[in-house]
Amino acid sequence: MKKLVLTGAAGRLGSYLRAPLAKMCDTLVSTDIADGIDTPLPNETYVQADLADFEAMEAVVKGADMVVHFGAFVDEAPFETLLGPNFVGSYNIWEAARRHGTRRIVYASSIHAVGMHPKTDAIGIDAAHRPDGFYGLAKCFTEDLARMYWDKEGIEAVCLRILSCANVTNPRAVGSWLSYDDMIHLVERAIDTPIAGFSIIYGVSNNDRAPVDNSGARHLGYRPKDNAEQFAEQIYAEAGVLDPQDPGNFCHGGPFASTPIGRSAMMALNLDEDDTGQG
Amino acid sequence: MKKLVLTGAAGRLGSYLRAPLAKMCDTLVSTDIADGIDTPLPNETYVQADLADFEAMEAVVKGADMVVHFGAFVDEAPFETLLGPNFVGSYNIWEAARRHGTRRIVYASSIHAVGMHPKTDAIGIDAAHRPDGFYGLAKCFTEDLARMYWDKEGIEAVCLRILSCANVTNPRAVGSWLSYDDMIHLVERAIDTPIAGFSIIYGVSNNDRAPVDNSGARHLGYRPKDNAEQFAEQIYAEAGVLDPQDPGNFCHGGPFASTPIGRSAMMALNLDEDDTGQG
Amino acid sequence: MKKLVLTGAAGRLGSYLRAPLAKMCDTLVSTDIADGIDTPLPNETYVQADLADFEAMEAVVKGADMVVHFGAFVDEAPFETLLGPNFVGSYNIWEAARRHGTRRIVYASSIHAVGMHPKTDAIGIDAAHRPDGFYGLAKCFTEDLARMYWDKEGIEAVCLRILSCANVTNPRAVGSWLSYDDMIHLVERAIDTPIAGFSIIYGVSNNDRAPVDNSGARHLGYRPKDNAEQFAEQIYAEAGVLDPQDPGNFCHGGPFASTPIGRSAMMALNLDEDDTGQG
Amino acid sequence: MKKLVLTGAAGRLGSYLRAPLAKMCDTLVSTDIADGIDTPLPNETYVQADLADFEAMEAVVKGADMVVHFGAFVDEAPFETLLGPNFVGSYNIWEAARRHGTRRIVYASSIHAVGMHPKTDAIGIDAAHRPDGFYGLAKCFTEDLARMYWDKEGIEAVCLRILSCANVTNPRAVGSWLSYDDMIHLVERAIDTPIAGFSIIYGVSNNDRAPVDNSGARHLGYRPKDNAEQFAEQIYAEAGVLDPQDPGNFCHGGPFASTPIGRSAMMALNLDEDDTGQG
Amino acid sequence: MKKLVLTGAAGRLGSYLRAPLAKMCDTLVSTDIADGIDTPLPNETYVQADLADFEAMEAVVKGADMVVHFGAFVDEAPFETLLGPNFVGSYNIWEAARRHGTRRIVYASSIHAVGMHPKTDAIGIDAAHRPDGFYGLAKCFTEDLARMYWDKEGIEAVCLRILSCANVTNPRAVGSWLSYDDMIHLVERAIDTPIAGFSIIYGVSNNDRAPVDNSGARHLGYRPKDNAEQFAEQIYAEAGVLDPQDPGNFCHGGPFASTPIGRSAMMALNLDEDDTGQG
Amino acid sequence: MKKLVLTGAAGRLGSYLRAPLAKMCDTLVSTDIADGIDTPLPNETYVQADLADFEAMEAVVKGADMVVHFGAFVDEAPFETLLGPNFVGSYNIWEAARRHGTRRIVYASSIHAVGMHPKTDAIGIDAAHRPDGFYGLAKCFTEDLARMYWDKEGIEAVCLRILSCANVTNPRAVGSWLSYDDMIHLVERAIDTPIAGFSIIYGVSNNDRAPVDNSGARHLGYRPKDNAEQFAEQIYAEAGVLDPQDPGNFCHGGPFASTPIGRSAMMALNLDEDDTGQG
Repeated sequence: MKKLVLTGAAGRLGSYLRAPLAKMCDTLVSTDIADGIDTPLPNETYVQADLADFEAMEAVVKGADMVVHFGAFVDEAPFETLLGPNFVGSYNIWEAARRHGTRRIVYASSIHAVGMHPKTDAIGIDAAHRPDGFYGLAKCFTEDLARMYWDKEGIEAVCLRILSCANVTNPRAVGSWLSYDDMIHLVERAIDTPIAGFSIIYGVSNNDRAPVDNSGARHLGYRPKDNAEQFAEQIYAEAGVLDPQDPGNFCHGGPFASTPIGRSAMMALNLDEDDTGQG
Repeated sequence: MKKLVLTGAAGRLGSYLRAPLAKMCDTLVSTDIADGIDTPLPNETYVQADLADFEAMEAVVKGADMVVHFGAFVDEAPFETLLGPNFVGSYNIWEAARRHGTRRIVYASSIHAVGMHPKTDAIGIDAAHRPDGFYGLAKCFTEDLARMYWDKEGIEAVCLRILSCANVTNPRAVGSWLSYDDMIHLVERAIDTPIAGFSIIYGVSNNDRAPVDNSGARHLGYRPKDNAEQFAEQIYAEAGVLDPQDPGNFCHGGPFASTPIGRSAMMALNLDEDDTGQG
Repeated sequence: MKKLVLTGAAGRLGSYLRAPLAKMCDTLVSTDIADGIDTPLPNETYVQADLADFEAMEAVVKGADMVVHFGAFVDEAPFETLLGPNFVGSYNIWEAARRHGTRRIVYASSIHAVGMHPKTDAIGIDAAHRPDGFYGLAKCFTEDLARMYWDKEGIEAVCLRILSCANVTNPRAVGSWLSYDDMIHLVERAIDTPIAGFSIIYGVSNNDRAPVDNSGARHLGYRPKDNAEQFAEQIYAEAGVLDPQDPGNFCHGGPFASTPIGRSAMMALNLDEDDTGQG
Repeated sequence: MKKLVLTGAAGRLGSYLRAPLAKMCDTLVSTDIADGIDTPLPNETYVQADLADFEAMEAVVKGADMVVHFGAFVDEAPFETLLGPNFVGSYNIWEAARRHGTRRIVYASSIHAVGMHPKTDAIGIDAAHRPDGFYGLAKCFTEDLARMYWDKEGIEAVCLRILSCANVTNPRAVGSWLSYDDMIHLVERAIDTPIAGFSIIYGVSNNDRAPVDNSGARHLGYRPKDNAEQFAEQIYAEAGVLDPQDPGNFCHGGPFASTPIGRSAMMALNLDEDDTGQG
Repeated sequence: MKKLVLTGAAGRLGSYLRAPLAKMCDTLVSTDIADGIDTPLPNETYVQADLADFEAMEAVVKGADMVVHFGAFVDEAPFETLLGPNFVGSYNIWEAARRHGTRRIVYASSIHAVGMHPKTDAIGIDAAHRPDGFYGLAKCFTEDLARMYWDKEGIEAVCLRILSCANVTNPRAVGSWLSYDDMIHLVERAIDTPIAGFSIIYGVSNNDRAPVDNSGARHLGYRPKDNAEQFAEQIYAEAGVLDPQDPGNFCHGGPFASTPIGRSAMMALNLDEDDTGQG
Repeated sequence: MKKLVLTGAAGRLGSYLRAPLAKMCDTLVSTDIADGIDTPLPNETYVQADLADFEAMEAVVKGADMVVHFGAFVDEAPFETLLGPNFVGSYNIWEAARRHGTRRIVYASSIHAVGMHPKTDAIGIDAAHRPDGFYGLAKCFTEDLARMYWDKEGIEAVCLRILSCANVTNPRAVGSWLSYDDMIHLVERAIDTPIAGFSIIYGVSNNDRAPVDNSGARHLGYRPKDNAEQFAEQIYAEAGVLDPQDPGNFCHGGPFASTPIGRSAMMALNLDEDDTGQG
């Protein structure tokens, strides 16, 4: 692969991806709205750009074989806040890809696209969209957009519905944890699979209590290795009894499911980004 | 019902709805981006407003028991064209409804939300989203938005996936026709059903060849009466043989399925709005 | 058919069944816990008996070709109240049938076996059991018992999940009504079908808004004729707006779904038996 | 349509089809292994030919727009008997169609392709193959062949799984009857549908007790009108009690399900072709 | 957890559970109808009580956070024998839990709730009830009861459909074995899972030939370790050829499936409790 | 087991099976159309015979407890070429088995029975037949034949849908590889399972990217050990970018899906048998 683009490269998850992605291509073009990134790698170019700016995105995407699209505003927020980066930004990536012949887009979707499903339902990759906020709605929008660009234009897409890629600090994460190593492995497989078509897969580690079912995505060969069970005993002891009637406990989306639409799920819960771990 | 709002009231379908809706409420507030409507009914108030303008929409929706949301740009078009009325407009309606306690929204969704499914699949109301363009993508977006506002805020929604509410002028319409009478009946049922929750239903007449399955929406009591079979013989004779490999013939979305993304499906095919009949 | 047994013959539904059943057999043996029935028919014998008394039931069932089992305590009630007639009574009927070679049992099951499903789900005959009280639990118990006696002993069973066989007096009944004529037709078909095996079917009229799906029971040939839509307008007007968050409105079971377990659903709601119409 | 081919034209069902098919084309080419047919129609040509003879079939099919393939040995029989007409014959038709650009084949498949399913399962068009003999196996073979020629070569196919197109003379036929008028209507729809792709549909009249589910084939617009219920009372009275443990009663395939593989189902049961009515 | 109740504590499976459960709570209250148990643990209290006695059960359950309900008559038996402990006993546990605020009940259900399904169907947790006797019927009854108490009263339940928790002595057990260690692990997970809602899971070890599918219960995190494959060769050699037409071989329920209803499956087959291993 | 028959014994896969099968029986009868096999094993008898010759097959099968049927023409080819060995040959085996009381047949079916399904669908054992050529059609035919002989005659069958049992030399095989060791293990399990009924299972190793789902065949206890992931990096590097619009890349059947019907898939692609690895 000659040129690979990574959006959201200055974000937490993007930062973990830069090195492994750089190994898979001649040139890695990293982009973010931030001023810059730490120490660019030898074959890495950084471009500061706003996802909501089509021309800027077109310039970045032009000539790329694939795009790993992890850029987004990462929290529940008012619709107006997310409209640019999370909605229009997705359109910009796919439309630029279409105009310039990019072959495949690997997208950081999220469990929040289906976050209102009860956790006792082991949802598969065909679960109906049930977003738990505007953040999740943007993931639904992008998955449907990706499906359309595949159906009509033949652009491949792999939508990674990431659960919790962050430290394990609460009972939900014992099931929903995605370790950084497994996240990297997942992205690598989404890239090196010879045929992707339109694929959806959950991003979760090999946790004993992983509550989702990837059996419909076997062709991608994702085999996670880490397991959050090591943290279970202590975290459960600290957390005490949970109320199963609270959507924040009972639904796949966790705190997003019980936070009012448009409110920060992190601030409302005294969490920072590391604790919720949305991709 | 005291106050009922109709968006898109100056459009073709909206025009058919004004009189029947006026009978179901004390006050009908009709709104559109057009300058005005023909002869307002006695209990009808017209408000010119842009769907993309939140404050204008909030003023219209405030105090409404229900909203019948038929306003939209009605054709496939570039994303930028649809972003305001079809995407942001939907958000504006639901968010205004949430802020002001509107109970239910009846929405003109479309077959184009699932238009890339093969027509030989008798898709039900649980068919996965497969939009056939940005127009259809906006319908997917709004259905997911509506699902979220029901799951999290308890606002009821009935999404009417209208097939072809227009004159029967082509072979596809022999199956996909929705007569104006049946369209009115469908909207009435979506309004008078005591409990709607989040419901999806296809808007199609009782055509012999109606290619979709409403059996999952029995609670709404929609019983269409018209049947396009009367037009079949002549239309088929004029149309000649169709190519089953053409997505425009083989997919539920018809011409939208074969038109490039973002291009007008009507102009490209020398159709006018009456021939495609998108809600 | 030589001998046909009807249990619950003195009850409301049983009373409607006596005459039509008498025409289908040489001898109709009607039984109930009541002192007697109005004017026995020429080929009808009445036996007063307690469903919970195995020996009494055995005497009634002996020699019968089929049993139409409509006897039960008809209301939600404490478990202790239902244990005898609704649980043990069912066992007594099937076990007596097994010992004496009865070929088939037609059973008045109920929507309350699946009453906690949301009404927006058009449940089919394969819906998982979700009883809405002990009354519904007895229906689940009997359906499972009937399945077992078919699987292991070859006794045929038709379980009629009756919705509301009573006057249409509330919004739910506009969808859930089963007219007496359709109820009789349903029982006749359950009897005259040459092969029943183990079958489940919903007992509901041809209401526009019938919320359940009998397509899995086509072999029984049930074609209801009545339609409660005639009552809709007036009843909806009187009922006013319903709260969709109330299980009594949102679930198939109606008032049973919102009544605490074990409490009379009829008394609690100021209904009498005619208004709830549980079979 | 210029040229339409009908195989099995001298058979019982074929005889009913000749006149209506002749109206749908310029030239009807009728073929059978029989010496001739009664009074050819003005635009009808008869060709005596053996289905098992590829060159003969190629000559018949060449230049045809569509083929209505009803020719077959019509009874359960030893594999050797059916190999030529029912297996190789199907291959010959499709392969000739492929070589000469025939657009669509309408095929008389049969309930016997799925005849071992229990009748209490209301099987849909996606029911797994469970043939009840070599006759049914040939139907399975041809359906799979047709699917392949559609998937790989784009030849459309409509497989009509006919139940019992014959006089109603036994209890099974009260559910499984296909009247001649409905059979003709079904074939007409299979021909005039603009897009067929690969379709399966059950051939059964609008019987109250029709035990199969065509809801997956709505696009074909088949709306049968006749109803065998008129015969039910007398036939049931004459037939007496049936044993539900007998596959001949309990399975969709009827007598074929209980006849040993390879034995004539008609002779074994003292039936003639009119009574079993296999297409 | 302060107080945990174990019913059936003197039984074979209960005996294995006492020590591990005692570690998970401040006080373990063990109960059984037996006179006593071996050497109570330091934080264990034994109460002799009859499951069928509501007041006795209420006294035991009062104040408990959770109940592990393994008490039952463990064999197929006449309905009258099972009515008290297995039916009424379940009601008593749940009703006492409701009255006194118990949070969750972990229940020893059984494969016999679905024992009549063919073993070649890899049934999941959503398999329809098909009990293989009164013993299995009591499991169906209790699962439905538990579902109701969750739906209406919010009491969590985990139903463990145990296959064969006993020594591996017959061919069926090579697939159906649940080792004691895995059984303990399963119960621990059912207790320590933060959110259970209403869950069903099969209790079977990690046998190569385990014939059931727990993929719908991933959230519980059950990861069995033992594997009966080590016993396969010898047991198969000794058992010789099995008749696949015998329900005792072909159905999930094993010997229960072929034993007449109400007869002891253990005695009839010269088995003792250790060989059938019903929970 | 006294007598076991292996067909196709001189073929590539058959050669690997001879030794392990010989250990499972008193006498192994190996047969093929070839002149002979290498060094017969002590308890092995070789019979040269043509699958298409019923009397020859009957002589071979007579007295056998089981048949492992791997004989076939192994490539896509004209229908006429496959008719004898692959179609009639299957009939001959099952009919001979029926006449002489053979208990079970283990059959080398193939992914090509379902080869036209997109690879992004993780098809299970219940996937509808979608053959990718005549070779695959023969597999469909035989599976349906086997189902019939089980349903009507009680002959057990295990159909092994082998993916690619050959060296890993192309990107598809990274997912579809079946190692020889795993192939042997699979056949052993198909033989030693006490109850097979009618079973289907995919023959694929424990590859990370195995694209099919055997969860419906758990009772067979197949646990493959090999993993083609070791070959992925090099093979992908050599293969370069694949076109996802090519059925040969996008469908489960691989090169067979893009080869015209009836043409050799091996020759057309410059492959030899070792590269396609059809069983």
